[in-house]
Amino acid sequence: MKFSQTFIPTLREAPADAVIVSHRLMFRSGMLRKLANGLFTYLPLGLLAFRKVENIIREEMNAIGSLEIKPSVVAPGELWKESGRWESMGDSMLRVKNRAGADMVVSPTAEEMVTGIVRDELSSYKQLPLSIYQINVKYRDEIRPRYGVMRGREFTMKDAYSYHVDEQSLDETYQKMGTAYRRIFKRCGLAVLPVRADSGAMGGSGSEEFMVESEIGDNTLLLCRECDYAANVEKAGCKPDYDAPADALAPAADAAPLEKIPTPAARTIAELCAFLKTDAKTFVKTLIYRAVNVELDLSNAPGCALLKRVRPAPDAPAVYAEAFFAVCIRGDLDVNEAKLAAALKAGEVSLASDADVERLTGAPVGFAGPVGLASLPVVADETTAALKDAVAGALEKDVHYRHVAYGRDFAPWLAADVRTVKAGDRCPVCGGEMYEKKGNELGHIFKLGYKYTKPMNARFLDENGASQTPVMGSYGIGVDRTLASIIEEHHDDAGIVWPMSVAPFHVVIVPIKYEGAVKSATDAIAAGLEKSGVETLVDDRNERAGVKFNDADLTGIPFRIVVGEKNLALETPSVEVKRRGEEEAKRMPVDAVVQETAGMVFDELMRLG
Amino acid sequence: MKFSQTFIPTLREAPADAVIVSHRLMFRSGMLRKLANGLFTYLPLGLLAFRKVENIIREEMNAIGSLEIKPSVVAPGELWKESGRWESMGDSMLRVKNRAGADMVVSPTAEEMVTGIVRDELSSYKQLPLSIYQINVKYRDEIRPRYGVMRGREFTMKDAYSYHVDEQSLDETYQKMGTAYRRIFKRCGLAVLPVRADSGAMGGSGSEEFMVESEIGDNTLLLCRECDYAANVEKAGCKPDYDAPADALAPAADAAPLEKIPTPAARTIAELCAFLKTDAKTFVKTLIYRAVNVELDLSNAPGCALLKRVRPAPDAPAVYAEAFFAVCIRGDLDVNEAKLAAALKAGEVSLASDADVERLTGAPVGFAGPVGLASLPVVADETTAALKDAVAGALEKDVHYRHVAYGRDFAPWLAADVRTVKAGDRCPVCGGEMYEKKGNELGHIFKLGYKYTKPMNARFLDENGASQTPVMGSYGIGVDRTLASIIEEHHDDAGIVWPMSVAPFHVVIVPIKYEGAVKSATDAIAAGLEKSGVETLVDDRNERAGVKFNDADLTGIPFRIVVGEKNLALETPSVEVKRRGEEEAKRMPVDAVVQETAGMVFDELMRLG
Repeated sequence: MKFSQTFIPTLREAPADAVIVSHRLMFRSGMLRKLANGLFTYLPLGLLAFRKVENIIREEMNAIGSLEIKPSVVAPGELWKESGRWESMGDSMLRVKNRAGADMVVSPTAEEMVTGIVRDELSSYKQLPLSIYQINVKYRDEIRPRYGVMRGREFTMKDAYSYHVDEQSLDETYQKMGTAYRRIFKRCGLAVLPVRADSGAMGGSGSEEFMVESEIGDNTLLLCRECDYAANVEKAGCKPDYDAPADALAPAADAAPLEKIPTPAARTIAELCAFLKTDAKTFVKTLIYRAVNVELDLSNAPGCALLKRVRPAPDAPAVYAEAFFAVCIRGDLDVNEAKLAAALKAGEVSLASDADVERLTGAPVGFAGPVGLASLPVVADETTAALKDAVAGALEKDVHYRHVAYGRDFAPWLAADVRTVKAGDRCPVCGGEMYEKKGNELGHIFKLGYKYTKPMNARFLDENGASQTPVMGSYGIGVDRTLASIIEEHHDDAGIVWPMSVAPFHVVIVPIKYEGAVKSATDAIAAGLEKSGVETLVDDRNERAGVKFNDADLTGIPFRIVVGEKNLALETPSVEVKRRGEEEAKRMPVDAVVQETAGMVFDELMRLG
Repeated sequence: MKFSQTFIPTLREAPADAVIVSHRLMFRSGMLRKLANGLFTYLPLGLLAFRKVENIIREEMNAIGSLEIKPSVVAPGELWKESGRWESMGDSMLRVKNRAGADMVVSPTAEEMVTGIVRDELSSYKQLPLSIYQINVKYRDEIRPRYGVMRGREFTMKDAYSYHVDEQSLDETYQKMGTAYRRIFKRCGLAVLPVRADSGAMGGSGSEEFMVESEIGDNTLLLCRECDYAANVEKAGCKPDYDAPADALAPAADAAPLEKIPTPAARTIAELCAFLKTDAKTFVKTLIYRAVNVELDLSNAPGCALLKRVRPAPDAPAVYAEAFFAVCIRGDLDVNEAKLAAALKAGEVSLASDADVERLTGAPVGFAGPVGLASLPVVADETTAALKDAVAGALEKDVHYRHVAYGRDFAPWLAADVRTVKAGDRCPVCGGEMYEKKGNELGHIFKLGYKYTKPMNARFLDENGASQTPVMGSYGIGVDRTLASIIEEHHDDAGIVWPMSVAPFHVVIVPIKYEGAVKSATDAIAAGLEKSGVETLVDDRNERAGVKFNDADLTGIPFRIVVGEKNLALETPSVEVKRRGEEEAKRMPVDAVVQETAGMVFDELMRLG
């Protein structure tokens, strides 16, 4: 391909809103242009690289027997109403009424669509397991799209869905997907951190996120310095940093009796520590949370007798639309809302308003505590079980309790791990020290269980002729984000440094002046390379060599061959070959350059798998 | 690929709404399923064939130097406002407001988007010509989607756009596109009728539609029995079937003087013919039309002095929102509204309401005529120029004129060809008799001129440093519709008969019972074929041979190899090979079947190009 016959509008300057490297380099190298906020066009160079990422994903999906399909991008809203997500997905879902007034969705994901298709075709266990994927356009109406295609509104996702007779079969496919994902990212030249949500034990429900380290990452990760433990802060656990009592509810033998103390004008933990000359670790911190769409059974929970469960959709699980909880945790720690929501099986949790706190605790904000609290269910973090002589709010203005003992003075309605793990905490696997990183999620594999198949009423007949619900998994990879992450990981000051597997071209030939003997040599080398299957760009522009060299660096093509009069005039007519990212160019005889370069290209492709 | 490991849910019965062959067979063969009205999912078998069509199109576009890009599917409405199509495209465009309240469009086509991109990057004539394409999802909110993917709401289109310094350069690319389109359809095994709108002369503006014959076609085509003339009725011309006077406006020497006659209770041409005992060919039929968004200059047109031109968008051409015209044509002919709209450069034309007719002509419907008509511009079809002794309405109830002579009694404000050509009319090229066919449009190449580049203000500097507007072409192919048309053309009572180039698999192997020696032979043949690059499906299902044979026919795979115990036990162990669509199976030695079959597969692929 000749540079003059393609369309690679390189730029000296990136647009002002491009603050991360991949965004800057995708614009400067002429890969990408912006159409509107969060909407982009891949230009020819960008699309070549994009398709390579897409094809690596497709090959690895096919290799594990997943079957590609192509549903429409615009989809009937009815399906989302069946699963209940029409309500729960909020404004990030782009909804539109068609001319007949029917609710439509520009697909943000496709659990419902694919389950709808499978439901209609599924009859027997013989059809299972079934693993299906698409690589297709998705739309999420991000409030603040930024970082180029790293967080766009429209993007391309590979999303796979699998259906199984039982958890064991699901687990087999889940493991295969995990292996395929590792291969995909390796082939793309990406170092990913696989972040598991649980032990990944056979049959257990679980998920695994594939993260790349990134300063602008959406996710906080906890990693162990000693072993390979890695977890999203939303799920990370840690080794207890306290002596857990064998029987948490057993009264402490030596505890002093509960006592009310005046604490005027002290309502934060820090103020109380100063006032009482004690340590935050001796506090029971109590926060009032509001939760929505709670699936957990609250029929026996304090203060919840009047709550009623409703079904957002005919076959969706019944939920409490709104419920409040008192969440207790050791005073030096923070509550992790993702963990809390998971423990409550809630759609979302957030701190209750001051008015709600006063109404529910009978005291202003700052004096909530578990002792004598009858209006709310108490959710106690595991750390509180070790507190046998603690300070806690007394549900009165300017009053606290001291000598509070877990088990004696209060007992939780629900004990759970809702602690935010942070750098310095100990690894739950090996006890090593953990540190934090920011990460961006490129892929996610997830055992969904019956979340969609049950409300959407997918059924099959098992070996005994009994009707069963299939268990389901889902597996996504963001194609655009993977491409941008490759650039984040592979670049230098001059531009992109493509791994061979995803480079838009393998080789760029730069004739110093595209005329006479230089032109003939250039054309011959290009023809030879292309015949060998090496994708070659010839920079035939009538530009200064410096301009062409800069563009070769900027666009990141792995090998650069410079053809000039002087080297051609040597006793052994030669050219210069340089690996992008290396300093030194190597002189090579014209006669050998095609074979040598092709060899290096294919060696690297092989190495990447 | 094993049948048991893919997902090909074949059906005995097609859904009730499937009335055409391709719709029925795509459902029955398990290629396609419906998501909602006009929205479909390609299942694995369907997607394999779909991708082959897509790739043929991609290869031929790349071969003529068109560059692939990938804009987003959801696009900013602003761009359509710039071109004026935000108003003119009507309800078929799916519009949506994003969460920020901005107008968005699910792209129905991409002239605006691509021109927007090119406008931002274009600076010099050196960048031209530029030819760009995408193969991407489109959405048109059809009122009555039907015939499966033949007229769906969401579909995949290859749309290309080219930009040029002048008409000559546009014409070169236009010709190349035409050649590429012919190759694409040939490779797909499709017989297309290229239907040209004009002579295709160098530099002339024009368009060419690529039609397939279809009973359910949207288009009426006129074809010549003698030469290769083919035209859409919206543009078809014909040889004059009258003696055209050398000077149309010259008074007829021998015409009788104009005379009013009473014509009580006769207002249709048929009634008048009966009443006056004359032929429809001697009438000047006059119809009052309402036109919207008229670009033509009406400043000197009768009755139009008060009309004002407005610009629907800042850079869009100025138009009259509404105007009325009296359209005259010979009494035996019909006015073609597409031709009339083109002659008036109007967005749309339609017959005026009865009330408008009475208001504008001063007479009830049925008595309009050109003589003495001052309130409206008269548009006269070319056929009226030969009428020198005709009957016409007299603008009074129950009164007509006779002895009306064109040129003496009336002169048109605009003379144009607005006649509907029909079967039996004479070919404009050779004079041969023409006949009609119904056709479906698969592709369209079109010289757009400055329609988008001008209002959207795309500019470049020419060789002399002067700022110029590029001239533009657009070129579309419907991928889904092409696929469905292949099935329409290639099927029999038992199912699809794929051309090799687009078959989802080249060969299906049917073991009578997939076990023992039959299984070993099947696996060996499959491995041999796949190693040769032949795409092979093994029907390993535990089903009766009849069921497998039926599915092999239904899915239309070009070659079927049957492996059975009896033939394997022959002195020369053999299998049976049958070409889909042929009656006879051929016995072939196991040792030879891989090489022979692969040879036939590649021969056919070669033949199709």
